[in-house]
Amino acid sequence: MTARWDGRALSEGLLTAARQAVESGVPEGGRPPSLVSVHLPGPSPFSFYLRQQARAAEGAGITFRDITLAPELTAPALRDVVRALDAEPSIDAVILEHPLPPQLGFFGAASALRLEKDVDGVGAASLGRLVAGQPVHVPAVARGAIKLARHHGVAFPGRRVAVVGRSETVGLPIALLLGVRGLGADATVTVAHSRTPDLATALEGAEVVFGCAGKPKLLNRSTVPRGAAVVDVGLVSVPDDSVPGGQRAVGDADGEDLEGWARAVTPVPGGVGPVTVATLMESTVQAWDLLGRGKPE
Amino acid sequence: MTARWDGRALSEGLLTAARQAVESGVPEGGRPPSLVSVHLPGPSPFSFYLRQQARAAEGAGITFRDITLAPELTAPALRDVVRALDAEPSIDAVILEHPLPPQLGFFGAASALRLEKDVDGVGAASLGRLVAGQPVHVPAVARGAIKLARHHGVAFPGRRVAVVGRSETVGLPIALLLGVRGLGADATVTVAHSRTPDLATALEGAEVVFGCAGKPKLLNRSTVPRGAAVVDVGLVSVPDDSVPGGQRAVGDADGEDLEGWARAVTPVPGGVGPVTVATLMESTVQAWDLLGRGKPE
Repeated sequence: MTARWDGRALSEGLLTAARQAVESGVPEGGRPPSLVSVHLPGPSPFSFYLRQQARAAEGAGITFRDITLAPELTAPALRDVVRALDAEPSIDAVILEHPLPPQLGFFGAASALRLEKDVDGVGAASLGRLVAGQPVHVPAVARGAIKLARHHGVAFPGRRVAVVGRSETVGLPIALLLGVRGLGADATVTVAHSRTPDLATALEGAEVVFGCAGKPKLLNRSTVPRGAAVVDVGLVSVPDDSVPGGQRAVGDADGEDLEGWARAVTPVPGGVGPVTVATLMESTVQAWDLLGRGKPE
Repeated sequence: MTARWDGRALSEGLLTAARQAVESGVPEGGRPPSLVSVHLPGPSPFSFYLRQQARAAEGAGITFRDITLAPELTAPALRDVVRALDAEPSIDAVILEHPLPPQLGFFGAASALRLEKDVDGVGAASLGRLVAGQPVHVPAVARGAIKLARHHGVAFPGRRVAVVGRSETVGLPIALLLGVRGLGADATVTVAHSRTPDLATALEGAEVVFGCAGKPKLLNRSTVPRGAAVVDVGLVSVPDDSVPGGQRAVGDADGEDLEGWARAVTPVPGGVGPVTVATLMESTVQAWDLLGRGKPE
């Protein structure tokens, strides 16, 4: 029997805690936390995430706004947009859609945010602090994926863990959170990726596998060690045959093939996704707290 | 037969190239590169490195100065020292001794350097850019260790590599340089550390092992896979029985035990050390170039 490690109950618990922190925490002269989500027009995996952000923020008492970028935007213009949001005192937290087309310079734009406002922890200073074991914010998806595994009983210290995928926004932050000294996970981490010639060999001995490749069905009986838990962080849209013109989100795990083989699999949707959104709200509350809870300086 | 991968010839080649770049590169109104090394008084593994820095800088035509910190220094005072060096236009590159006692706040001080001057790539922004595959400078020891392996014929793409040790100044930068997308190494990297319960199992399958633990004899036949190459980046001082009161530098590898077992071992001293020093000079020349080669702004 392969367990299904759902994320919805955990997500709801995190959102309830966030709401309580907001309700009881607005100081005199202050205001509730505010989060701005910046994205391109049109459908993408991020649009789905965006709707969840809006709903979760509302539930947590966080002021949420989204900004649709002009499609003809340049990298310097994007950086200016982010700089202006960084300078705006009524905003505590900014998240920028990723991936963006390379010419838009996602990393440079995200790095224009001060540490406190870089709520998804993807700018240069945020990532550097993570390497040094002194993070302020870390990517919500990384913290969410690890939270979900812990919620279902995984204790990482001393464990062999594999991360499949090495983006600076997902795979590498997970590997760092799990392996960096002083952050408490203390796992022995292997990072595999598209240039790993033999994935099965690279994953041998891993007790937990984080799928962050965005490649449907990559994680199956021929790649995942028997008895390992699979935390599925991959997210891509594929055509949904049951709806004309429809799309559905899938992860990296071939859940059917892994049934009876893996210790557990987190579902997509309903696994890491909702925990990520709730973790983003938790980080927004933290940003608000770091920046003075909306009290004028 | 276990090969001995010496670093001295490579180091000399790098220093010759640095000297040529300096000799032919000083513009009208400019000056040669300048490097400042900041350290505590008293003997440490860094003092040995410091003497080598001074000698290598002289050979490369780089102006070298070292600053001895007051032993009673506080973290804010150290940060002020570094800030002042960052603001000084006659200096291109600053390296700060590490490890420092934790109360001195090494990471905070190093993060006060602008990207170009953080020649050892250990500040927050430098490390963050490394994670994102867009480094300016990276730790000289990390680049030096990888250079040395390549010099002796190691091609990393697709290889299994293990890094033993996870400091943010040595082990993690090596792991990132080897694994991050776009930097050309494309290895599948496992990071093991003091909380890894079974080092031998964690290193299974590794074709190259980077020893960055600072634990003499940790890498031996019982931990290193047969036929793997050992790049020894560990460096600690141990009593030298041949000299009364003497000290000698040793690495992580038990060279005697690995003889006939490992494919190769880099010696300590004479392996990664001289290549690191030469790489620091190379990075200093690069910093000088980025900052305008000493021409007034």
